[in-house]
Amino acid sequence: MDYSSNLLKKAVEALSTLPGVGRKSALRFALHLMDQPQEHVDSFIEDIRQFKSRLRKCQQCGHLTEEIICEICTDPRRDRTVICVVESIRDVLAIEATNQYFGLYHILGGIISPIDGVGPQDLTIDQLIERCGSDEVHEVILAIRPSIEGDTTAYYIARQIDDLDQVRCSMIARGVAFGGELEYTDEVTLGRSIESRLPYHPGVSVRG
Amino acid sequence: MDYSSNLLKKAVEALSTLPGVGRKSALRFALHLMDQPQEHVDSFIEDIRQFKSRLRKCQQCGHLTEEIICEICTDPRRDRTVICVVESIRDVLAIEATNQYFGLYHILGGIISPIDGVGPQDLTIDQLIERCGSDEVHEVILAIRPSIEGDTTAYYIARQIDDLDQVRCSMIARGVAFGGELEYTDEVTLGRSIESRLPYHPGVSVRG
Repeated sequence: MDYSSNLLKKAVEALSTLPGVGRKSALRFALHLMDQPQEHVDSFIEDIRQFKSRLRKCQQCGHLTEEIICEICTDPRRDRTVICVVESIRDVLAIEATNQYFGLYHILGGIISPIDGVGPQDLTIDQLIERCGSDEVHEVILAIRPSIEGDTTAYYIARQIDDLDQVRCSMIARGVAFGGELEYTDEVTLGRSIESRLPYHPGVSVRG
Repeated sequence: MDYSSNLLKKAVEALSTLPGVGRKSALRFALHLMDQPQEHVDSFIEDIRQFKSRLRKCQQCGHLTEEIICEICTDPRRDRTVICVVESIRDVLAIEATNQYFGLYHILGGIISPIDGVGPQDLTIDQLIERCGSDEVHEVILAIRPSIEGDTTAYYIARQIDDLDQVRCSMIARGVAFGGELEYTDEVTLGRSIESRLPYHPGVSVRG
């Protein structure tokens, strides 16, 4: 498609580098910005610029921070004996939104995926094992997506943690999602949910 | 969702102002930009800034231009007797991509839609009628989307052009799309395609 203008072409190319954004969406974004008041576009640009220039990754867990170590890692109210291992910052935000986890995090920066050329050395697994070496840490919770690559990554990490005496390893439960229908649940998930069944007595919490 | 950081929150809010982009996609965009080299984000921002500050709307047709009148309007090779009326700049780009139209354009900036509070006075209809007043113009092609609002807009414009002696009004053909299956074509389109049938002789162009 000929964009008549080189400036439009460059804006569309820039916007189409965003994940999941094709040429047509990028064009829509660009023309939308053209229709906005100059102040709106100025603050749009400034918000992205500030975000990129002032935030960096926490040197301990990999979460975003304006400091060297992030707010979660430095928060004295958080349980420093537990580390939850996740793939990305988005997973941290999702778990934080549950308001049910008060330990620390460790962001891997991806999962082991030979097809995509991602090996263990491309992730922060060594840093995780180093963190587990501290006397403080007693549990590592693996909160990695259920998939071939995710399971490979979990297995790789769990094997290394097995060598450490004081740290036990756990994995978040897999099963039928709340509100999900059994009929439409895939066989692997349904099979696992039966295998991982818990004792249940009326009036007693399932966790008991 | 708590974004831990005000800078992240502002970047996500800015990106979610783009059309069709929700919070989750905006967060994905922001974290993608965080993972890019600084130079990439600098040029991303600069491309949008330049696009917004250096381009404006052509005072004649409404297309994007760095000048006062756009390249299409000033191109001496274009047929100045025909004006194609479209809703948006995206429609101009789509028609230009066909390489089958060599006249001028007129961008309405929307269609008449009482539900959205858009009346004829919010569009560039008056400017179109003024352009049609020139002796040069002999045909106005309405290339407006087939819908209740589109048809209302077309009717509104056609009625005013009817008063002008030297200008005839036409509408782009509506019918079954190339590669489309009759079975899955909606009734209005299929009905119209029968109503608007053209004589057809083997070996002779349908246009004949």
